Amino acid sequence: MAKRIAAFGEVMMRLQVPGYELLSQASTLNYSFSGTGVNVLSALARFGHTGYLVSRLPANPLGEAAISYIRKLGIAEKHIARGGNYVGMYFLENGFGVRPSRVTYTNRQESSFNTAPEETYDFETIAKNIDIAHFCGIALAMNDSVRSHMTRFARTVKEQGGTVVFDCNYRPSLWGDNGYEKAKPHIEDMLHLADIVMMNEKDAIHVLGMKTEKETRHEQLTELLPAVAQRYNIRVIAGTHRSINGDNTHVLQGFMLKQNIFTLSKSLTFSVYDRIGAGDAFASGIVHGESEQFSPEKTVGFAVAAGMLAHTVVGDTPMSSESDIVRIMTEALGDVER
Amino acid sequence: MAKRIAAFGEVMMRLQVPGYELLSQASTLNYSFSGTGVNVLSALARFGHTGYLVSRLPANPLGEAAISYIRKLGIAEKHIARGGNYVGMYFLENGFGVRPSRVTYTNRQESSFNTAPEETYDFETIAKNIDIAHFCGIALAMNDSVRSHMTRFARTVKEQGGTVVFDCNYRPSLWGDNGYEKAKPHIEDMLHLADIVMMNEKDAIHVLGMKTEKETRHEQLTELLPAVAQRYNIRVIAGTHRSINGDNTHVLQGFMLKQNIFTLSKSLTFSVYDRIGAGDAFASGIVHGESEQFSPEKTVGFAVAAGMLAHTVVGDTPMSSESDIVRIMTEALGDVER
Amino acid sequence: MAKRIAAFGEVMMRLQVPGYELLSQASTLNYSFSGTGVNVLSALARFGHTGYLVSRLPANPLGEAAISYIRKLGIAEKHIARGGNYVGMYFLENGFGVRPSRVTYTNRQESSFNTAPEETYDFETIAKNIDIAHFCGIALAMNDSVRSHMTRFARTVKEQGGTVVFDCNYRPSLWGDNGYEKAKPHIEDMLHLADIVMMNEKDAIHVLGMKTEKETRHEQLTELLPAVAQRYNIRVIAGTHRSINGDNTHVLQGFMLKQNIFTLSKSLTFSVYDRIGAGDAFASGIVHGESEQFSPEKTVGFAVAAGMLAHTVVGDTPMSSESDIVRIMTEALGDVER
Amino acid sequence: MAKRIAAFGEVMMRLQVPGYELLSQASTLNYSFSGTGVNVLSALARFGHTGYLVSRLPANPLGEAAISYIRKLGIAEKHIARGGNYVGMYFLENGFGVRPSRVTYTNRQESSFNTAPEETYDFETIAKNIDIAHFCGIALAMNDSVRSHMTRFARTVKEQGGTVVFDCNYRPSLWGDNGYEKAKPHIEDMLHLADIVMMNEKDAIHVLGMKTEKETRHEQLTELLPAVAQRYNIRVIAGTHRSINGDNTHVLQGFMLKQNIFTLSKSLTFSVYDRIGAGDAFASGIVHGESEQFSPEKTVGFAVAAGMLAHTVVGDTPMSSESDIVRIMTEALGDVER
Amino acid sequence: MAKRIAAFGEVMMRLQVPGYELLSQASTLNYSFSGTGVNVLSALARFGHTGYLVSRLPANPLGEAAISYIRKLGIAEKHIARGGNYVGMYFLENGFGVRPSRVTYTNRQESSFNTAPEETYDFETIAKNIDIAHFCGIALAMNDSVRSHMTRFARTVKEQGGTVVFDCNYRPSLWGDNGYEKAKPHIEDMLHLADIVMMNEKDAIHVLGMKTEKETRHEQLTELLPAVAQRYNIRVIAGTHRSINGDNTHVLQGFMLKQNIFTLSKSLTFSVYDRIGAGDAFASGIVHGESEQFSPEKTVGFAVAAGMLAHTVVGDTPMSSESDIVRIMTEALGDVER
Amino acid sequence: MAKRIAAFGEVMMRLQVPGYELLSQASTLNYSFSGTGVNVLSALARFGHTGYLVSRLPANPLGEAAISYIRKLGIAEKHIARGGNYVGMYFLENGFGVRPSRVTYTNRQESSFNTAPEETYDFETIAKNIDIAHFCGIALAMNDSVRSHMTRFARTVKEQGGTVVFDCNYRPSLWGDNGYEKAKPHIEDMLHLADIVMMNEKDAIHVLGMKTEKETRHEQLTELLPAVAQRYNIRVIAGTHRSINGDNTHVLQGFMLKQNIFTLSKSLTFSVYDRIGAGDAFASGIVHGESEQFSPEKTVGFAVAAGMLAHTVVGDTPMSSESDIVRIMTEALGDVER
Repeated sequence: MAKRIAAFGEVMMRLQVPGYELLSQASTLNYSFSGTGVNVLSALARFGHTGYLVSRLPANPLGEAAISYIRKLGIAEKHIARGGNYVGMYFLENGFGVRPSRVTYTNRQESSFNTAPEETYDFETIAKNIDIAHFCGIALAMNDSVRSHMTRFARTVKEQGGTVVFDCNYRPSLWGDNGYEKAKPHIEDMLHLADIVMMNEKDAIHVLGMKTEKETRHEQLTELLPAVAQRYNIRVIAGTHRSINGDNTHVLQGFMLKQNIFTLSKSLTFSVYDRIGAGDAFASGIVHGESEQFSPEKTVGFAVAAGMLAHTVVGDTPMSSESDIVRIMTEALGDVER
Repeated sequence: MAKRIAAFGEVMMRLQVPGYELLSQASTLNYSFSGTGVNVLSALARFGHTGYLVSRLPANPLGEAAISYIRKLGIAEKHIARGGNYVGMYFLENGFGVRPSRVTYTNRQESSFNTAPEETYDFETIAKNIDIAHFCGIALAMNDSVRSHMTRFARTVKEQGGTVVFDCNYRPSLWGDNGYEKAKPHIEDMLHLADIVMMNEKDAIHVLGMKTEKETRHEQLTELLPAVAQRYNIRVIAGTHRSINGDNTHVLQGFMLKQNIFTLSKSLTFSVYDRIGAGDAFASGIVHGESEQFSPEKTVGFAVAAGMLAHTVVGDTPMSSESDIVRIMTEALGDVER
Repeated sequence: MAKRIAAFGEVMMRLQVPGYELLSQASTLNYSFSGTGVNVLSALARFGHTGYLVSRLPANPLGEAAISYIRKLGIAEKHIARGGNYVGMYFLENGFGVRPSRVTYTNRQESSFNTAPEETYDFETIAKNIDIAHFCGIALAMNDSVRSHMTRFARTVKEQGGTVVFDCNYRPSLWGDNGYEKAKPHIEDMLHLADIVMMNEKDAIHVLGMKTEKETRHEQLTELLPAVAQRYNIRVIAGTHRSINGDNTHVLQGFMLKQNIFTLSKSLTFSVYDRIGAGDAFASGIVHGESEQFSPEKTVGFAVAAGMLAHTVVGDTPMSSESDIVRIMTEALGDVER
Repeated sequence: MAKRIAAFGEVMMRLQVPGYELLSQASTLNYSFSGTGVNVLSALARFGHTGYLVSRLPANPLGEAAISYIRKLGIAEKHIARGGNYVGMYFLENGFGVRPSRVTYTNRQESSFNTAPEETYDFETIAKNIDIAHFCGIALAMNDSVRSHMTRFARTVKEQGGTVVFDCNYRPSLWGDNGYEKAKPHIEDMLHLADIVMMNEKDAIHVLGMKTEKETRHEQLTELLPAVAQRYNIRVIAGTHRSINGDNTHVLQGFMLKQNIFTLSKSLTFSVYDRIGAGDAFASGIVHGESEQFSPEKTVGFAVAAGMLAHTVVGDTPMSSESDIVRIMTEALGDVER
Repeated sequence: MAKRIAAFGEVMMRLQVPGYELLSQASTLNYSFSGTGVNVLSALARFGHTGYLVSRLPANPLGEAAISYIRKLGIAEKHIARGGNYVGMYFLENGFGVRPSRVTYTNRQESSFNTAPEETYDFETIAKNIDIAHFCGIALAMNDSVRSHMTRFARTVKEQGGTVVFDCNYRPSLWGDNGYEKAKPHIEDMLHLADIVMMNEKDAIHVLGMKTEKETRHEQLTELLPAVAQRYNIRVIAGTHRSINGDNTHVLQGFMLKQNIFTLSKSLTFSVYDRIGAGDAFASGIVHGESEQFSPEKTVGFAVAAGMLAHTVVGDTPMSSESDIVRIMTEALGDVER
Repeated sequence: MAKRIAAFGEVMMRLQVPGYELLSQASTLNYSFSGTGVNVLSALARFGHTGYLVSRLPANPLGEAAISYIRKLGIAEKHIARGGNYVGMYFLENGFGVRPSRVTYTNRQESSFNTAPEETYDFETIAKNIDIAHFCGIALAMNDSVRSHMTRFARTVKEQGGTVVFDCNYRPSLWGDNGYEKAKPHIEDMLHLADIVMMNEKDAIHVLGMKTEKETRHEQLTELLPAVAQRYNIRVIAGTHRSINGDNTHVLQGFMLKQNIFTLSKSLTFSVYDRIGAGDAFASGIVHGESEQFSPEKTVGFAVAAGMLAHTVVGDTPMSSESDIVRIMTEALGDVER
């Protein structure tokens, strides 16, 4: 059933060097706007849901450009506050083969989103008119004010009977020294509020400080995640394991824990065009599967296929329809469609 | 020996999204003009033959652009009629890895070619001044008027002692529901007139309704094609078998039936840049081999190498010279040529 | 006061040769989507109103691209039906100096919009939820089925107490031979239903067949338009007079007839970047002025400034905010803003 | 009446910095192929004549690209010899306003054309199958071998009853120190052979060393050119006078001397997009007018309009049809054509 | 005589929408790096001087790109400190005709330059090895720490016998509310240290609070600037008056006060390609004239011609050589140079 | 320890068709400037050394563009002489898969570098101020005058106690018929002067005419190179063996002979973006390792990793820093860095 979904998060401007040149070689950039919230809502809009971004953008030409871009993706703009002065940005230089891609950020702390004053968002009203709210651990790393918005919004959603989705998305560079320690209380705040969580065994070990004697990722996962689900009272925990082959193909396998049962997807191997945002596509697939009450097998299969397709699409933001994903789940590699 | 070759067929405008964006992401298109006739004649011009396109284009800026493009390829324009109002078009979104390419057509039925009135072409004069005429099953799918042009032209060529080449090229989307049934009489008309035919066992089974108990493609091929050659009195039947590997390389093998003898090329495995038009390159190779009286081994080897190279070239239209193809038939993978 | 405005009209794909090359010289195109309805709603969205496009687009990648583009402009998509197979297109080659721009159309008759079956749109529901509906004489030139949609929608809007805006927009090339004669009854149908009309003295003379002995455009205008307003019971008639200088600057003057009083704007002289769509910007200015109950002087001044600014913007579609337009009405030519 | 016209001349590769950057700022170039012969034949092909380029290009990818480009323009390639190693090139940086454009040449002396051995061209056969041959003073500046080809070809054409057209096109940078002195005998050789000559009073004074006491360009022209026509027995002499306004528009006036009667065109004022090649468009107009037996008034008016339009077209090479030119001769500045 | 010149200032990244689209329409940006110091040193390098930028850039890919760009301009990098995290940026949307250009800044306060700690630069060493140091009022608007660097560097240069150049460059948007008041003490600090100052009568009135009863700009100028020169003991004061015509050409006149004598340049009228950075070209011309001991007439004529040419060049940064400027001072508008 | 390194060699303009089109299909080119000397110095500048190019470029816009480009790479321009008229150029068409890349040269013999008169360079002064000089066998193939410069410079460097590096770089197409014979005496001249030499067993066999009964490349290498080192008294000989896999990955292994000990690097397998210039990156790694007194294992490992990374970078010229290379030597394939 089509849901009304809000996502709370920053809009970033992505400035990408076209092709494979470095910033010191090129003279043009392609730009687009993304962010975990934008990516998740774009994916869900393509599955038939209505997505509302809850964010803040400046009332200047960059803010206009960001909003136009978000509208183009099919995301409703009515809960985007306008104010502040800046948009967070990152520069992307594409790697090739053994040479890795490089991301360089501008100062996000001064962005409109990260400087939003306390009364910026009317969470009461928003929460009354949605079914699901999505949150991401990246925003949690920003500052106290953003964290306060997040937990307040999540609590309001719970009070209104909505579903809270939380993607841990622990980024070491954002949390800095002693990051795990700093992050832990904030991530736990969200875990206590969340119904659906994206995380894996590394988050359990490093962020939550859980112990295991197991050695393989899979064993660790099956030992630790049920404990997490129980401790924080989480309905669904899902995530992916990724490995990278010597020929630069990636292997992705999705997992999902629900009612104490682990479900694993097939391992998918594929070529990668644009790595960024693929995790958001997976998360969207889980949210969609739960909304449509798919079986766990179908949900995690759909989510990992959505994640795989997002690697083949230009930009951070998933662009595949439900039928695109279902086709890729069932069909062999095909010739050109004409 | 250099031949004079006419090809009867529509000129299509190809509008391709550059790179890997979708039409809903991008804002620019690359355009070119192609079509089976254009592709075959371009290939044959590079082998030293003279090619005349028999087609119809509007007397407007799009028609001018199409003719300029065709001239650039080295094709003679003197049998292109001018009139009507539209050029058929298709949009191409490139796939990446597991994500397939997509082709979206505009309405071709109203094109100058598909609305050409009865007296448009002077087939008598054309037939007198050529050695070979090439026809394609795509045009056969258009409408009665185009079919009437085709069979009339083929018959006139036969009467003048010329060689008729026919490429079945059955496209399900063009023939619609009950397509095989609808197509059969028209394809049979052409088979009765043809000296050289491009087809494979699937055409025999589905279009011509022939039966076989064999299970592999190769067995079906060797059983059915001699029967086809005999029933329609066809001198040469040739075609390819394609398979697609998990790493997105394609495998192509050419075959040729002549005087009841089957000749198979080597199986070639290669990376693909532009899939469209590669079948026309193969057909051109067969026509060239027959024109030059190559041995069947050389003909089918040349044709499949021409087809392989066409997959590595930008656009629908083959651009390789005879020496390019001969080199690829004989040399190992080499370093940069400088 | 912010209004809810629907516009009924076709979405066209604009395929523009970048720079000043001809189609026969270039190899890339820039594309966008426009149409009178799109242009008017985009302008009005920038003035704070809510715009709903009433149209039909195919459920294929071109339709997706069109809808994404329209969303980006801030236009609500919920009254866009999906169906049919094609999008109308036009190719634009930019002129330079004495060399005029050229527009080449593809066949619009087969477009999704122009083949929309009778029950496509739920005009009752739409009419109940809007304040104003906008119609354009270009759609009127298409076919009986489109005309039937138009008059039915306009009548429903009137019945619901809404305002009907009609832009004559007589295009000789669309009506063909004896065009004035063919167009007259259909244009009169709309004039009888309309509250606000865009037209000038040429429409009165040529389409409506009115007579005048006056010789200057201005005299003809002031004689004929009051008669038109009276005959068809039209509240506001507005339009522009354009002339082109030797140095390729254009001169634009707006006029407006309301309650039998003529109001003229200043004559504005300016350089032109993109001529197409400027009339729609003027119309939007009139609709905005009337919605906001501006004085006639302010309305026509605002509308002609909106029209002027639309000539300086890339593409068919106006992009200026109300404050951009107000600033240009009051300020001298300025230096760079920084 | 449609004529068969040969032009003898070098094909140059034009490498233009796009937009207004300098070579030291940019990183991309647009390339095309041109030359006086190419330009004249392209223009004449658009007027319905058949043009044969007589030139020499290398059998390498640059030569292929040049020939493809020439074919695209509608010029017959059959008299282009293949051999040698290089194509002459020039780099073009566009000026803006007061900043002039800059042209930088590569070494032309080593080009295939300028190193063509004596027996390269079969002038006998060519001359037998054409009506008119066109020559340019730029080729005359190259070296003895090129000069020998030129005079031999011109003489053969005369012997076969063809018309010889010669465009003086004296370029100081090509002739070097004491250029006038060096050039004189060679230019006189061609003048003795020519029926139609493009030159003006400056050529008469500086190259031919004629004296005049007159001070204005127009007086000098009317005094000197009849003397030139008589001395060298030339049927038609034509040319243009250009001046450049402060607002960067150019003023162009054509003149033509035939049977001792001077005919002047209107003075045309216009904006300039691409200055290079406009003189060739004028020359083509004169050749066309003479071929069609236009009145001198019509010929010179057509030629100067062709020259004006060539300034508005991208690239060196005229792209206007006869109807484009006739329309510009008769119509006022118009709005967009749609 | 060739001088060694240091300029103290921030390097900004300029991100420009190509052509005339808005940020909300486009998807690509051209980028370059500039700043008053960069612009002045680039101009002076083209006049034969050696320029050292004194600035600070991050040790990341953006910093690398900035330094590569500066090196390309011929500026010595050895006094550029590496540290901090960010580069200041501005987005530029080009205006067209009556529609003005728009500049949108990112947060500069966090840039490497504006957060440089006290011991970043070794001003002693730098001052010992240069002849001239250039400072700009834009840097003065940043923060106390930058102002402290500036005055310390200027004082050190004076102590070492060097020449201090100061360009007032008062930017209202940078100083904010009560900007004149805030700016005055800092600007006065620099005026007391400066030998050569760029300013005009508006700076004297608004920033320095001087009074005049005169009404024309020119009268105000000649009354106030001698008083400024005397009060702050300034050897040379120079600047420009600009006006903008209805046809979007600009008029520029330079002035220079030296030894109590006013010298005015000719008024130059010209088309503008890129407005930004032209003031820096003028300043460079004054510095060059003073370095070369030109007469005041030659200096101010050279400077204003340098300023004019900078308007015709792509980007913020002057690219003209001394000979380019001298030619434009003496020659009429010319045809293409070839 | 940071060294001062001069490289003697020509600057070539590289004109590359973007993407995978042929010159006869495309209309734009990307240009850059390179050459063995440029490439080696760019790599060494990124390792912290100071590089001086010893070359000659014309005083025209192409020469300016070349120098700007070289400066951007961080190479000191002070030993680049200005004079002559031309820059050597090559056109590059990218291959795809089985279709090889093609390089087409313009005439280099007339370039400023190859026509430099005897007194162009002040080798005495240069040699006194550097530690190392690099020479390449490509320049040796040009003409006697270039060879004379080379040997004179190498001898001067030796006399001043500097290190001479020589890269054999035998190119069959440059030496023509009987190339080995022609090249031998000149290559031997350089070998006698060199301390560090890049070559492999093929050079020993074909150019130096040495004999071996061994069959594998590796056996030949270990037999012949010690003999070469001894005969010419060379301190270090290094080079690479390359093979190309069916999937278009390349395999590269470096070797180094020093004090009669052979050191082999690991065999690296990797995807290739731009093949050209990778040998120069390897050479730079050897020079850097020797300058920093790395162990032979580290030197050859660093050099081959530098070579591998150069295959992944756009353009001929290595762009990797020392830390980029060290990271690739030690880390596994990683995910995006953010």
